[in-house]
Amino acid sequence: MQAWKDYQEQNKERFLNELLDLLRIPSISAKSENKTDMVACAEAVKQRLLEAGADTVTIYETPGHPIVYGEKIIDPSKPTVLVYGHYDVQPVDPLNLWHSDPFDPTIKDGKIYARGACDDKGQFYMHVKALETMVKTNSLTTNIKFCIEGEEEVGSPNLATFVKANKELLKADVVLISDTAMISMENPSIDIGVRGLSYIEVEVTGPNRDLHSGVYGGAVANPITMLAKMIASCHDENNHITIPGFYDDVVEATAEERKMMAAAPYDENEYAADLGVDKLWGENGFTTNERTGIRPTLELNGIWGGYTGEGAKTVLPSKAFAKISARLVPNQSSEKITEKLLNYFKSIAPAGVTVNAHEHHGGEPYMTPVDSKAYKAAAAAIKDTFGKEAIPVRGGGSIPICALFEKELGIKIVFMGFGLDSDNLHSPNEKYDIFNFYKGIETIPYFHKHFAEA
Amino acid sequence: MQAWKDYQEQNKERFLNELLDLLRIPSISAKSENKTDMVACAEAVKQRLLEAGADTVTIYETPGHPIVYGEKIIDPSKPTVLVYGHYDVQPVDPLNLWHSDPFDPTIKDGKIYARGACDDKGQFYMHVKALETMVKTNSLTTNIKFCIEGEEEVGSPNLATFVKANKELLKADVVLISDTAMISMENPSIDIGVRGLSYIEVEVTGPNRDLHSGVYGGAVANPITMLAKMIASCHDENNHITIPGFYDDVVEATAEERKMMAAAPYDENEYAADLGVDKLWGENGFTTNERTGIRPTLELNGIWGGYTGEGAKTVLPSKAFAKISARLVPNQSSEKITEKLLNYFKSIAPAGVTVNAHEHHGGEPYMTPVDSKAYKAAAAAIKDTFGKEAIPVRGGGSIPICALFEKELGIKIVFMGFGLDSDNLHSPNEKYDIFNFYKGIETIPYFHKHFAEA
Repeated sequence: MQAWKDYQEQNKERFLNELLDLLRIPSISAKSENKTDMVACAEAVKQRLLEAGADTVTIYETPGHPIVYGEKIIDPSKPTVLVYGHYDVQPVDPLNLWHSDPFDPTIKDGKIYARGACDDKGQFYMHVKALETMVKTNSLTTNIKFCIEGEEEVGSPNLATFVKANKELLKADVVLISDTAMISMENPSIDIGVRGLSYIEVEVTGPNRDLHSGVYGGAVANPITMLAKMIASCHDENNHITIPGFYDDVVEATAEERKMMAAAPYDENEYAADLGVDKLWGENGFTTNERTGIRPTLELNGIWGGYTGEGAKTVLPSKAFAKISARLVPNQSSEKITEKLLNYFKSIAPAGVTVNAHEHHGGEPYMTPVDSKAYKAAAAAIKDTFGKEAIPVRGGGSIPICALFEKELGIKIVFMGFGLDSDNLHSPNEKYDIFNFYKGIETIPYFHKHFAEA
Repeated sequence: MQAWKDYQEQNKERFLNELLDLLRIPSISAKSENKTDMVACAEAVKQRLLEAGADTVTIYETPGHPIVYGEKIIDPSKPTVLVYGHYDVQPVDPLNLWHSDPFDPTIKDGKIYARGACDDKGQFYMHVKALETMVKTNSLTTNIKFCIEGEEEVGSPNLATFVKANKELLKADVVLISDTAMISMENPSIDIGVRGLSYIEVEVTGPNRDLHSGVYGGAVANPITMLAKMIASCHDENNHITIPGFYDDVVEATAEERKMMAAAPYDENEYAADLGVDKLWGENGFTTNERTGIRPTLELNGIWGGYTGEGAKTVLPSKAFAKISARLVPNQSSEKITEKLLNYFKSIAPAGVTVNAHEHHGGEPYMTPVDSKAYKAAAAAIKDTFGKEAIPVRGGGSIPICALFEKELGIKIVFMGFGLDSDNLHSPNEKYDIFNFYKGIETIPYFHKHFAEA
């Protein structure tokens, strides 16, 4: 539509500046010290939704961080799209690896460098600007609801209660989420699935105090050594996960799906070169694409114990810790896998140490049917603006609330992500290409058009 | 001697208060931020030596922290004792586990809680007060030299240069060191050996940046997992160290020595109970006493990588690190073992990660002959003040400079330690019993007496 294009072209600088303002708020949900920033960020989202043309916007308090809900209802008989996104971001450490301040967005080579640039402020904000485009050009053909939460990065612990209590408010025909990536702008793709998540923290305690490693070395189980042995036991020589029952509920991908995946444009050498590794790693019998898409995985997210400062300290530490998470595929259950992980680490505790383990947030895997009205609308929208067919792919990340929306609201989710795998999500120097930001704003109105017409 | 006893009784409170003042200086040699504290501490040691009766005291600058040298020469024809000690202390973290400020000495139940209380400020300061006792009671029968350095806890990198350049200055008949422990005050003992040390730091690098563990999880070698596998490989199922050639140069203790060790008062159940562990751990085929005395060991001193903060972060980190040290026994060479450790970790680097390793300080193992004049003087002194025969034992810790003194000055070292294994050296809540402090001041003059008479 020429009207959309003109409006967006005239306002593109403002769109970008508004996003940069949003990125300046350090809305790290995991850190209690950022609690007031979270409130400020929710307020900012509310204001932007109102300015963009939402009829009403309400901030819902939760025991954690607030949820921003807004809506623009043009006609209750028309289809309704519920846009889900999140205004919270990941922690920023290791801070010393950032080339610029994570909360002072810096533009370089057409890319916005900031924590949350892509995940998810830059992506949910495309929907705010798409709403504005349609409202200001008087071309809205669907009702639009926004549910922008502040706890996605910590597992959405309060969203379920909110959704269950507000089913009528959230009633819609589809959930539309931009929190995923495409293969590339030349090879536009749509995620048809996201992996689930189980996340645990393990604490290994040896002696009741830190000891002198000379006086006691060799006579007492070292909790770091014991933790290392436990971690080493989690993968066998084929890089299969050894935790009993881990693969029990996995629905194997069909030969057809694997064939389709193998046909997707994808270069393992480029992938390795981008990561700077001499050799890729993973479960034997699967391609890299399959390892991150259709297979469950187990990763160490953090480890610490003993002396980690400058120089040398000859300590035999009392404790060692690890953060460990698994990505899950259909039909694994986050709860069941978390239980298996916790039990595994407790059960293999070597004599001489005690092992405690507790869970962090989890989430269920999710698959979108490619024959649904919403998927087809997304594919048509991408064809309109990219001039190419979208490739359906399975994403490696997790959006824990998908299963919740489907269960409570009885509707499907469609993912329209405009990020790239190289956007450094959860890492130093997170970025989002300005091109992708604008491309998302351009494409989203077409989704609403096709969804209304279908 | 009654005169010594009277003098010490009259001045005991001042002796203690002086030590507490010394403990208030945060002389952490490993931390560059404490550089000025190191200088202040060296100055304080100089003043105390002068007040105690040293003829001259000089602070020798080094490329690192200064060395304090002092002497009291009564007659060049008399035997000369060189007292070695160190005024630097270990870092204090984890600070949150201390029950009181490590640099605000707190007395509780007759114990001084402070970093350095036992290691080594409380112990070398006994020699300063013993000197004062003998000077003030006009009963000194040996020449005494003091070499109190500031880099023992970081491996004495500049002591060798100093010793080599000042052989005449340091000329003596024996080196006397109080930096070890006794079995207990009821079972006084003398260390006849200390273990050597090799210390390395390992850096494992996987991808060139921190990655999202969902997007990339399962497709790239995780440096924490790889480091854990490498660490897990260092001990076999009998807890023998697997590093090729590690045991090659070990001189096995004789059956006689092992028999003597087995006879020493020692209760493994008490030892385990004190440490709060359900089961002791160590190299199969050896007792706990042997594991810390006559056997080389390999301990993890620190590990870190990925996200170690509050909550959960789904990162697949770029790097993981470990600090690893070995304790060595005669005739292992620190240099050779360090080389073996570095080579081992580099050689077992799994594909997909790169491993860098570098060394921290090391030190050679050392044994004192029990038939030497100095050992006999120490044993006689202990019999005088404890009323019991001292038990010869092998200590687990390391005093890297012993081999240096022997080589450069051609003299033997004798250890008269008054600490306890439970003094929490290198750990939170380091302590030193006031009883032991006074007992050391009481005993040391007898050593000089017996050594002069022998």
